[in-house]
Amino acid sequence: MRNNQFAIKPTNYETQLVELHDVRFLNDTNDNLNDPLSLWISFLKLSFLSAKSDSVFSQKLQNIMATSEQNLQTYINNQKVVSVTAFYNVALQLLGFQPELDFQLNDTLTAMNKIQLKIADHSTDSFNLDELKSAWYWLLATHNKEGQTFIDQLAANGYFVSFYDDETVKKPLLFNGKTLPVFDPHKLIREVVYVESPQDTDNDGKLDLLKAEILRPAETESGLKVPILYTASPYNQGTNDETGEKLMHNVNVPLKVKVADDNEYKDIEYHAETKNLPSARKISGETDKADETFSREQSYTLNDYFLARGFAVVYAAGIGTKDSDGVRTTGDPEETTSTISIIEWLAGSRVAFTNKIDNIQINAWWSNKSVAMTGRSYLGTLATAAATTGVTGLKTVISEAAISSWYDYYRDGGLVIAPGGFPGEDADVLAEETFSRRLQAGDFNRIKDTWEQKLTDITKGQDRDTGDYNTFWDARNYRKNIKNIKADLLLVHGLNDWNVKPRNVEKLWQGVQNLNVSKKIILHQGQHIYINAFRSIDYTDIVNLWLTHELLGVDNDAENILPNVIVQDNVKTESWHSYSNWSSIKNPTMNYYLNKNTLSSEKTPAIEKISFSDKLPDLSFNNYCQNIDKWQNDLLSDQKSPIQNNRVIFKTEKLNNEALLDGVAKLNLRVSSSANVGLLSFQLVDYGTSKRFNISPSILKAKGLAETYDWREDDLREFELNTKSTDSKMITKGHINLQNRENNFHAESLSPNEFYDISVELQPTFYKLQAGHQLGLVVYATDFGMTVRGNQDINYTIDMNYSSLIVPIHK
Amino acid sequence: MRNNQFAIKPTNYETQLVELHDVRFLNDTNDNLNDPLSLWISFLKLSFLSAKSDSVFSQKLQNIMATSEQNLQTYINNQKVVSVTAFYNVALQLLGFQPELDFQLNDTLTAMNKIQLKIADHSTDSFNLDELKSAWYWLLATHNKEGQTFIDQLAANGYFVSFYDDETVKKPLLFNGKTLPVFDPHKLIREVVYVESPQDTDNDGKLDLLKAEILRPAETESGLKVPILYTASPYNQGTNDETGEKLMHNVNVPLKVKVADDNEYKDIEYHAETKNLPSARKISGETDKADETFSREQSYTLNDYFLARGFAVVYAAGIGTKDSDGVRTTGDPEETTSTISIIEWLAGSRVAFTNKIDNIQINAWWSNKSVAMTGRSYLGTLATAAATTGVTGLKTVISEAAISSWYDYYRDGGLVIAPGGFPGEDADVLAEETFSRRLQAGDFNRIKDTWEQKLTDITKGQDRDTGDYNTFWDARNYRKNIKNIKADLLLVHGLNDWNVKPRNVEKLWQGVQNLNVSKKIILHQGQHIYINAFRSIDYTDIVNLWLTHELLGVDNDAENILPNVIVQDNVKTESWHSYSNWSSIKNPTMNYYLNKNTLSSEKTPAIEKISFSDKLPDLSFNNYCQNIDKWQNDLLSDQKSPIQNNRVIFKTEKLNNEALLDGVAKLNLRVSSSANVGLLSFQLVDYGTSKRFNISPSILKAKGLAETYDWREDDLREFELNTKSTDSKMITKGHINLQNRENNFHAESLSPNEFYDISVELQPTFYKLQAGHQLGLVVYATDFGMTVRGNQDINYTIDMNYSSLIVPIHK
Repeated sequence: MRNNQFAIKPTNYETQLVELHDVRFLNDTNDNLNDPLSLWISFLKLSFLSAKSDSVFSQKLQNIMATSEQNLQTYINNQKVVSVTAFYNVALQLLGFQPELDFQLNDTLTAMNKIQLKIADHSTDSFNLDELKSAWYWLLATHNKEGQTFIDQLAANGYFVSFYDDETVKKPLLFNGKTLPVFDPHKLIREVVYVESPQDTDNDGKLDLLKAEILRPAETESGLKVPILYTASPYNQGTNDETGEKLMHNVNVPLKVKVADDNEYKDIEYHAETKNLPSARKISGETDKADETFSREQSYTLNDYFLARGFAVVYAAGIGTKDSDGVRTTGDPEETTSTISIIEWLAGSRVAFTNKIDNIQINAWWSNKSVAMTGRSYLGTLATAAATTGVTGLKTVISEAAISSWYDYYRDGGLVIAPGGFPGEDADVLAEETFSRRLQAGDFNRIKDTWEQKLTDITKGQDRDTGDYNTFWDARNYRKNIKNIKADLLLVHGLNDWNVKPRNVEKLWQGVQNLNVSKKIILHQGQHIYINAFRSIDYTDIVNLWLTHELLGVDNDAENILPNVIVQDNVKTESWHSYSNWSSIKNPTMNYYLNKNTLSSEKTPAIEKISFSDKLPDLSFNNYCQNIDKWQNDLLSDQKSPIQNNRVIFKTEKLNNEALLDGVAKLNLRVSSSANVGLLSFQLVDYGTSKRFNISPSILKAKGLAETYDWREDDLREFELNTKSTDSKMITKGHINLQNRENNFHAESLSPNEFYDISVELQPTFYKLQAGHQLGLVVYATDFGMTVRGNQDINYTIDMNYSSLIVPIHK
Repeated sequence: MRNNQFAIKPTNYETQLVELHDVRFLNDTNDNLNDPLSLWISFLKLSFLSAKSDSVFSQKLQNIMATSEQNLQTYINNQKVVSVTAFYNVALQLLGFQPELDFQLNDTLTAMNKIQLKIADHSTDSFNLDELKSAWYWLLATHNKEGQTFIDQLAANGYFVSFYDDETVKKPLLFNGKTLPVFDPHKLIREVVYVESPQDTDNDGKLDLLKAEILRPAETESGLKVPILYTASPYNQGTNDETGEKLMHNVNVPLKVKVADDNEYKDIEYHAETKNLPSARKISGETDKADETFSREQSYTLNDYFLARGFAVVYAAGIGTKDSDGVRTTGDPEETTSTISIIEWLAGSRVAFTNKIDNIQINAWWSNKSVAMTGRSYLGTLATAAATTGVTGLKTVISEAAISSWYDYYRDGGLVIAPGGFPGEDADVLAEETFSRRLQAGDFNRIKDTWEQKLTDITKGQDRDTGDYNTFWDARNYRKNIKNIKADLLLVHGLNDWNVKPRNVEKLWQGVQNLNVSKKIILHQGQHIYINAFRSIDYTDIVNLWLTHELLGVDNDAENILPNVIVQDNVKTESWHSYSNWSSIKNPTMNYYLNKNTLSSEKTPAIEKISFSDKLPDLSFNNYCQNIDKWQNDLLSDQKSPIQNNRVIFKTEKLNNEALLDGVAKLNLRVSSSANVGLLSFQLVDYGTSKRFNISPSILKAKGLAETYDWREDDLREFELNTKSTDSKMITKGHINLQNRENNFHAESLSPNEFYDISVELQPTFYKLQAGHQLGLVVYATDFGMTVRGNQDINYTIDMNYSSLIVPIHK
């Protein structure tokens, strides 16, 4: 176990004392103690929540070793001081570390350093009274063996239960810049409202009402105004898995020839239509009480954590979902309007009703008008979309694995490119999947025809025939509005996310560099996953520090404490590094020239051309369609395989020194296709035998992480090294339609066997290539996981003399 | 979705009315209604817990279709009657089924029948008042689309929250023979006691104190006596995964020659030693209040379900675990004594203390002295062990995937045979793994030397050199004491459990057939898993019906309602069948003769012998050691593989009719080994291409099943067919050491190349072999997953003329 805590707030001693009083580790009784040993005992007594008698307390002390010879009871009976070693021997055991296994009792501080746990200042081998208080303060802020601060561990054991109904407790209660779980999660108020949004997407002559589910602390009833975590999740009210599945497109179709055009951007640019809107509902009354509630919301564990910490949580699924009006649009401006309507209501500038019938208005009177959006994937996407409107009240978005332009989700380089793992999915499939109005037969019966028409429009608009960037996709490009962003950004993305590919976050990151907002990014080694409940990084603490600053307006220096960029190491487990930037345009590059299956930094005359076919025998083709992992393995492998002549591999020499690839690698190629149509795919590969991270994190302990006492639990996770070595790993990839040599919205004709120069940007990366490994480039055509698979009889030729690879290196 | 409910209790109309009043669906207001429509509306209103106004209620009604034309609000406005069709259209939607997808609105009853949902009696097309009440009663007892009764669905939505603090509510409250969740799970009282057991297993001169964690309803404080679910789990206080792993034995060692002996059973029979025991602690006081508590117990979801239903739950980990005294023994009589000590305290016949220091006695004054044991694997094993003592107070055990003799867990046929998936594990490894006293350094420091000696003794006693059944294993054979069983038995086992193999449950089942206790068995298609939260079977309801009878003494006819044997179909998903017995000795058999790779029912002269080698080239051997799945695939496959000459396969003709294998298949073989040592392994195989069940159930919905409102949740699961066909599946297997031809405790010498007759019983099964498939027998030696793997140069020969396979068939 190696601990990485980024959210520890440097705190001066005076503040430490105040906070120790606030959390009641210091009180009238022990504040006057004069010897460190007695004070330590009083701290321990408060921590051993299960012991309700001195005997049980003593029993517990006897089970902890203070030194390699003495248990804690014996130590206390025989010593007069609190030695630094004994303190941390005990601390480590309180944190769940085990002598002999995790540390040696006579070499404690070495272990503390190795595990990366904070050691408090001490002027001698023993703590004096002030030092001990400070040491206890820092211990409370330190992570235990299961990735939780000691104070959160105590909370999970019930430490703050007595704070729930105690009116003398400050609420929210802060410790080390972060809020504490002093709100009873079983007393949350749950209510439903219907926000009237300023549009009529189902054209029923009435403004769309949008259902919002609210969970707020009971304390709001007595006047506490609270901040809001708002998760816009189209999945939240249920999904149509079966009807969605039926719409999946066949990808075993040939790549079609595009008619050359003269498109310029202005020809395809999206302009909002001006629609005549129905008038707003006439308000027939006003109330503070909702008349609809709900039981178990479909929750997001990060929100669960904050529900005990004085935040309200709001879930809304948006237009076209169960109990709301409207239709699904998959990411267009109407969906953005739907998304921010909820924020506008929370901030006081939009009307909501208690139900869809009575027109009784209800305000978010309990809101402090500070909203953060949270969520992953589509949820994070809508957070990003909302941010690009600059809507008032949205202070920050925590946007995980989010799409920033839907073209970069379903298309690339003039090609239909599936999100990894979902060949045949497209905007229409997702619209149907999230159209949860279908789940209520009575409602569906009313909207059915409208919906079928809308779905037809989406299918047409997305245009699978060309794969071009058109007006449909331009309407779904949030990056056009980056300049409007006023919310601070905390972005999280997996460097191995081939569902929402890293370009989505990198282009957003680049786009906001000069905006006057705080922005942070965390890049992990996962695919399309959450990183809550990872043991080795204090992600929840980071978010807590961030939101305490953003939504509670606490001056906790979050924007300076948190590094701009945190990247998980891809070689060493449990290692997270800070950087000032990612994919900086100032990064130097390594230029490689292609030559006879090699990549070399020196250009040597390479008169040769190299060709490959894209056609496979039917049997092999079908096998690969069925088994995409197998295809990917064969693609990178030097071993004989059915695909060995359907791709070319170029490799560098073995690297003498480690290299840190940072940003967007670019390929310049001179190529020809034997047909009047063609596509190329590329993978940058790490060649070298080593044990690499598993694709998914392991569950170290199911339900191992409590959000607080007697409340919801998350699975404790961590990336582990696979027990077996592998010879290669894809670093990043890219695709291009040879008819989109200039850009994605303009098709040019392609003459068979004529050479063209193309330039392709691969997906951005941050990758440590170890010394002794080789950087590889694989060039191929059909990508069995992502492109159409026509198994067409096309040959591709690369003129190596005019081809190069440019790789950005971290400075 | 196909529903299988075994725990619906036939209930007469008068009782239905009483229960409808008890659960407050009938009340003073609606009891006097004269028309079915108004009554129906009143039921619906009580069910729509989220609607707190008539408008919201109406909004909900509008979202449900009553007929293919009318939504429920329109229906109610326009109709005078409750048609059976409208009732069940609405019911199906309330249960989560979706029109068009799961059923057709104009063909409702067909769908009800197909899904296997109960339809209430009705004399016409519409329900009269009595019929409607009855229909609502049965609806409450009917499973929804997610495998939960409608009344439990309502409970999950908060229906019973108002019952928690209502003193007019009967507690426990029953419905259809099962208890309801009317106990607030957040008010559970949690306390720790230390039971003084009548032994001193760590020889410290003091009787072992055993920690027990108790959760009991708050209502016990005001006098309610409650039954107890007791789970004895050695894992419960933590495990030593790393130190356990280090003890794993190397299985890549040769099979050793055993010295022939004259052993009879009496020579190895275990006799309990008489030990001088320390005297009991002197009691220095008595109290009703515990002085130790705990926060989050390591819980078992089935227990969580019952915690809201008026049962107390007790967890104890036993001797040698954290906070308890004693040492681990892996299943010997001392562990059984430790296990039942807790029951004896719960039943009032043993002393417990509030802590380990003060000798203050505390009684289980809140106990109704009726105890059930629950748990899977080692936990179920200890339940079985406890049952074989006949201890007073233990009314029933629900024993899942339990060991009934530890020889059948770690050994077989005179061989060391690993539990599937854990080559090298043995009794000593498990002892170390569960020795959680190690987790507390202060305690471990005191017990270390004693523990090391004990571990040495276990390693010696288990005797990996011979694999024989010896005194060590005889002490760990609970079946010797079957005659003592007084508790009723509910046994659950996976027919594909190769960890705790099915012989464990089958021999127990056979052994109790003539005992005067109720016994039921459920056999599922899983490996070593729980079957809580399966969608297609009402397992939780079954257990509820059973425990309501066993522990609350309610005469609910559970013993007759529940079939003796429930078996999950291995061909058709979501199908569970009732039988009167399993593996009956009266089952007829099919006899097959071996001949030139065939199994035939006619004996034809087969003069040929067939031989195979057990030796593999090093590379193949090492590959198989690393990849046991690959080995298993190659073993059964007709394809060319490194192992193709290391086994022989016999197959029947394709079956004309389906065959239901039921019980213990037996092999009679005449064999020789080329060495003076040898082992044989056997697999019975289903050959035939079809889509088979996945090995593990799929998670249909993570956290999808609430134990009740705002309480713990389980993952909703179900076995699904794999999307790909396979050519074969192992049905069952067996092993024998050729030196144990007579029995497992007596070794005979083996002369090289001499033929011997052996008889081997394979593990019991219940397997449907489809028409068109072939039954296969694979004979081989080294079992890469289970036996030692010496890669010895031994040839085995079978004399087919004297060999046969006897397969029991379900009558």
